[in-house]
Amino acid sequence: MLRVGIIGGTGYVGGELLRLLCVHPKAEVTAVTSRSHAGKPVDAMHPNLKGLLDLNFEDVDPATIAHKCDLVFTSVPHGAAMNVVPGLVDAGLKVIDMSADYRLPTEVFEAVYNKKHADPRPNVYGLPELHADEIKNATVVGNPGCYPTGAILTAAPLVAAGVADRVVFDSKSGISGAGQEPTEGTIYANVAGNVRPYNMTSHRHKSEIDQELGALNKNVKLHFTPHVIPSVRGILTTAHVFVNRTMTDDEVRGLYEDFYRNKPFIRMNKPALANVRGSNFCDIAFEIEKGTDHIVVVSAIDNMVKGSAGEAIQNMNIMYDMDERTGIWMSGLPP
Amino acid sequence: MLRVGIIGGTGYVGGELLRLLCVHPKAEVTAVTSRSHAGKPVDAMHPNLKGLLDLNFEDVDPATIAHKCDLVFTSVPHGAAMNVVPGLVDAGLKVIDMSADYRLPTEVFEAVYNKKHADPRPNVYGLPELHADEIKNATVVGNPGCYPTGAILTAAPLVAAGVADRVVFDSKSGISGAGQEPTEGTIYANVAGNVRPYNMTSHRHKSEIDQELGALNKNVKLHFTPHVIPSVRGILTTAHVFVNRTMTDDEVRGLYEDFYRNKPFIRMNKPALANVRGSNFCDIAFEIEKGTDHIVVVSAIDNMVKGSAGEAIQNMNIMYDMDERTGIWMSGLPP
Amino acid sequence: MLRVGIIGGTGYVGGELLRLLCVHPKAEVTAVTSRSHAGKPVDAMHPNLKGLLDLNFEDVDPATIAHKCDLVFTSVPHGAAMNVVPGLVDAGLKVIDMSADYRLPTEVFEAVYNKKHADPRPNVYGLPELHADEIKNATVVGNPGCYPTGAILTAAPLVAAGVADRVVFDSKSGISGAGQEPTEGTIYANVAGNVRPYNMTSHRHKSEIDQELGALNKNVKLHFTPHVIPSVRGILTTAHVFVNRTMTDDEVRGLYEDFYRNKPFIRMNKPALANVRGSNFCDIAFEIEKGTDHIVVVSAIDNMVKGSAGEAIQNMNIMYDMDERTGIWMSGLPP
Amino acid sequence: MLRVGIIGGTGYVGGELLRLLCVHPKAEVTAVTSRSHAGKPVDAMHPNLKGLLDLNFEDVDPATIAHKCDLVFTSVPHGAAMNVVPGLVDAGLKVIDMSADYRLPTEVFEAVYNKKHADPRPNVYGLPELHADEIKNATVVGNPGCYPTGAILTAAPLVAAGVADRVVFDSKSGISGAGQEPTEGTIYANVAGNVRPYNMTSHRHKSEIDQELGALNKNVKLHFTPHVIPSVRGILTTAHVFVNRTMTDDEVRGLYEDFYRNKPFIRMNKPALANVRGSNFCDIAFEIEKGTDHIVVVSAIDNMVKGSAGEAIQNMNIMYDMDERTGIWMSGLPP
Repeated sequence: MLRVGIIGGTGYVGGELLRLLCVHPKAEVTAVTSRSHAGKPVDAMHPNLKGLLDLNFEDVDPATIAHKCDLVFTSVPHGAAMNVVPGLVDAGLKVIDMSADYRLPTEVFEAVYNKKHADPRPNVYGLPELHADEIKNATVVGNPGCYPTGAILTAAPLVAAGVADRVVFDSKSGISGAGQEPTEGTIYANVAGNVRPYNMTSHRHKSEIDQELGALNKNVKLHFTPHVIPSVRGILTTAHVFVNRTMTDDEVRGLYEDFYRNKPFIRMNKPALANVRGSNFCDIAFEIEKGTDHIVVVSAIDNMVKGSAGEAIQNMNIMYDMDERTGIWMSGLPP
Repeated sequence: MLRVGIIGGTGYVGGELLRLLCVHPKAEVTAVTSRSHAGKPVDAMHPNLKGLLDLNFEDVDPATIAHKCDLVFTSVPHGAAMNVVPGLVDAGLKVIDMSADYRLPTEVFEAVYNKKHADPRPNVYGLPELHADEIKNATVVGNPGCYPTGAILTAAPLVAAGVADRVVFDSKSGISGAGQEPTEGTIYANVAGNVRPYNMTSHRHKSEIDQELGALNKNVKLHFTPHVIPSVRGILTTAHVFVNRTMTDDEVRGLYEDFYRNKPFIRMNKPALANVRGSNFCDIAFEIEKGTDHIVVVSAIDNMVKGSAGEAIQNMNIMYDMDERTGIWMSGLPP
Repeated sequence: MLRVGIIGGTGYVGGELLRLLCVHPKAEVTAVTSRSHAGKPVDAMHPNLKGLLDLNFEDVDPATIAHKCDLVFTSVPHGAAMNVVPGLVDAGLKVIDMSADYRLPTEVFEAVYNKKHADPRPNVYGLPELHADEIKNATVVGNPGCYPTGAILTAAPLVAAGVADRVVFDSKSGISGAGQEPTEGTIYANVAGNVRPYNMTSHRHKSEIDQELGALNKNVKLHFTPHVIPSVRGILTTAHVFVNRTMTDDEVRGLYEDFYRNKPFIRMNKPALANVRGSNFCDIAFEIEKGTDHIVVVSAIDNMVKGSAGEAIQNMNIMYDMDERTGIWMSGLPP
Repeated sequence: MLRVGIIGGTGYVGGELLRLLCVHPKAEVTAVTSRSHAGKPVDAMHPNLKGLLDLNFEDVDPATIAHKCDLVFTSVPHGAAMNVVPGLVDAGLKVIDMSADYRLPTEVFEAVYNKKHADPRPNVYGLPELHADEIKNATVVGNPGCYPTGAILTAAPLVAAGVADRVVFDSKSGISGAGQEPTEGTIYANVAGNVRPYNMTSHRHKSEIDQELGALNKNVKLHFTPHVIPSVRGILTTAHVFVNRTMTDDEVRGLYEDFYRNKPFIRMNKPALANVRGSNFCDIAFEIEKGTDHIVVVSAIDNMVKGSAGEAIQNMNIMYDMDERTGIWMSGLPP
């Protein structure tokens, strides 16, 4: 059994990692840390786990953690991870970091997050469909943002093929992406029956989209506008792709099938958040606007799974030479 | 035009009073106070009012308010109102208080709210269907709680007739009843797709239900369990009434029709929150369980209107000898 | 009092017209027709109206209707209106048609709706902010579609100024836009917690957007992708506008303020569906993406009001020389 | 591997059985039937299963099914199951029936469902916490209704102890309990933001509650009022229990712990639908109303899992001597 720890286990991301890992057949959760809740049972914060996981939160001590674990997921805020990860690496652990700290080249990170990086190192971007080989050999993996996971997977085949000149990502996310902190923006009365754009032209996740799609075609123009919808989980990404030549349905479908061959979590399937809810799948469909240069490509993921904890476990599986589906090969939860 | 002021105009109750009053044909809002937002436009906090109301928040100064207003609605927290109201009354204003401070006899208030009352005076309970005469002549009206409005109206005819031995109120409320403060209990992720009981046997609103139904029949046993449902507005009250003799449909219907004759806001109408949303109606229906002593009576109100701001304006109308429907005679908002 | 009738009063549109008209100070509903419900009380289908409107549905008979009414709203399906309207016009009535039958030139209608038009006549497109003069003198007004109302108002100032080369409308609508017929696409289990694009490149409302924005600038390229979100009411329109020259915030704001001067229902106001819910307002905001040709303009309307019944009453007010705000000058319903 | 079939695999219950069984480690789905969809891939109706299950629907032929399967779940409407089950039993199959046909003694069934029973036989009520021994040896198990599962588990310990005189079950269910057929009662616009009682004193599930709790104490008086809340999954049962002697918290807790010792799916855990969503757990909590005979006991289940498909698989596990947790030991899905 692979022994795994979670650094920062009280939030949504930690909870979702625990939900999935507590039934993973080849991994065992051996440590969950929380400074503020050390000594309390994990199921006091995550009552859904009662009966499934019998552990107490403990304080963060790299040496102790390294004694109990082979790999840790660091689930602490942006800017904090970079101060925690080096100690864990030095203690001999592999790390999958859930924050933004290890997703971007140091100089890009510093510009976008307006913060000096305390642990500059080459980044391994943990999007398994694009970077499995690097992930397999990495010590520290930067797990992708939820929006970028959805956006990149939606447009990558058209961008890589050189046919996309411009892509407008109009993304719709459930509110869990905002975390569990109560705010004016997350209360029920302000989310229910509403849909709200935010950071309409300047969301920080844009830098990840630029990095990954720019690597596939440096000339593509990219735009990204996120919205919050009245849903807890899920991101629907509507990609308005403008192409430089006329394409047929078969051609587009062929590009996607080729690009995602042997990628079990990518399905050409009519996107509906319910179909992927709780699962690691990314469902994609497209439609060409007749007589124009406009193709609409749409995808659905669960932001907490394929956009976060599930993708991280997929990365873990790859790092330890397991089938990448291990422990996360399950259906979404409709209706 | 009646000149009205709102003391404490930034919250949900203040906002709802403003929404209704800004189109009331015989009242004009002339002052809205807020200590923290003094000087700012009211529509900065209530953007729905943009174009409809051109006022700035001002600080609370009884003399100034008394100069501008005939009546004020005090919309400040429980325990704070009792410190604000005396000054306003002394300055010559009539007051409709939206807090719990003037709903109960002093000694009951002090026991239930565990607080010494700073302004003991006989309470006028502002439920217009039961106390129109007292309200008409009051200087200070204690506007009822949202749950009690629903509960009392649902069971009063059966209690007053002496046939109800025991009533279990199982109430389901939208989350706006919890106010606009972001908390763990009000965030979307914890309310959506959920239903949650709280204060299952000890909610403070029980004292208002006891007071009003106990006055109709001192022997009736009363129980009250509130729940939060995934709705912003509305309270559905399910009253399980246990009766001391066999009754027919016609008898029960007759009791309700007699009790609520000439009460325009009470309708015998299949309850649905949507049908009363945004309106001052209380819709009631019932069903007798065959061969038993059990009658289920159900009502629907909008907790923000009939359970708060609308009822307060109904009280205002009564206090100034207007038709009680003035300015609040509008349909609910389905679908 | 203006005497108004509603032809086809059982559906959402009829219900919403009744909700608003039953408290309109200068209009009185004198007839509501329904073939299938003739003889039944209107509040049997619309229980929210109980106590507010005491009318029975009657059969559609132009002569009788003309005797009772000055103007009628025809709220029957696309393709059916064209068979009903001529008789009403011949009987001397003015007509505001809620279907698509009178929104487009005959030849465009026939191409888009794939149906021969039974009553070809010049169309008056009932968008009051663009066509008040024509509406004032019209006998038959084609009330706009809900999506087009939102889309056209969002982009018109930039298109009219000649700076917009291309606009991608990514619209998010509440489910009431689909009508009240139960279908797989409208059941709660398939809408809740979901967001779903449909007719991604080919929605028929596109023809109205093309007509109106094309009239402002025939060279602008237009794309339209609608989505259903988990909301009952409301449309948020996200317009991705690509411009042909660099613009400043002040310039863009100035264009909107000039274009909508003296248009009371258009507000430069951060869009939130709750702020316009139940009201006739259209709230608009924008953000320029720095260093690019991309401007995001967002608007919020209530599809049932500004996108349908409210806009129709605004048209009625204009046709009868009333202040266009009469009877529909009310706040939205947050929270 | 146990070979299982599903008779009637297109609905919610069939879909949920498939969702769970397709990753069950000791069972394999070898046949899924549907008269109307025979020949089509199962994932055409259940797109969430794409990639997880590669089967086509087939027609219902007992001999063929018996050749491929050891056990079948019959997921056909009430009244239809009784015509399908005998043939399957005769062909040598064990059956877990998801309808109401095998839950009640024949004469009770016929009275409640107003239908002659075509296959009278002693019923085995498939509530594993009460009837594990009978289930283990049964050929046909009648899988319980969703409401009864919640209600019975909530009150059984107090009823069995002889302290409960009367129980009022006020149940709140997600809309999935109504099935996938689009109706006026299941459309989003009528469920969202609403809560609706129905069959307030006469729901047919009452007969199962009577049977099971009556068997524990024949003198207890039982009442049951179901409501639909704006949730897809989940039932919260609020049991108002009236007791015949004063009890302490410890006493009540002790009764529950004793009654549910070694029942892994019952947890004394603050009920929240999210914590059990997608899982087979039943979470229970209680509060004694001070100085009265009233105890409120509340439970949460997922109506599709512990109230249907999960409970059925738990029964299957018991029938085949597996650990009852096999394949269904997973966390709920919060948030």
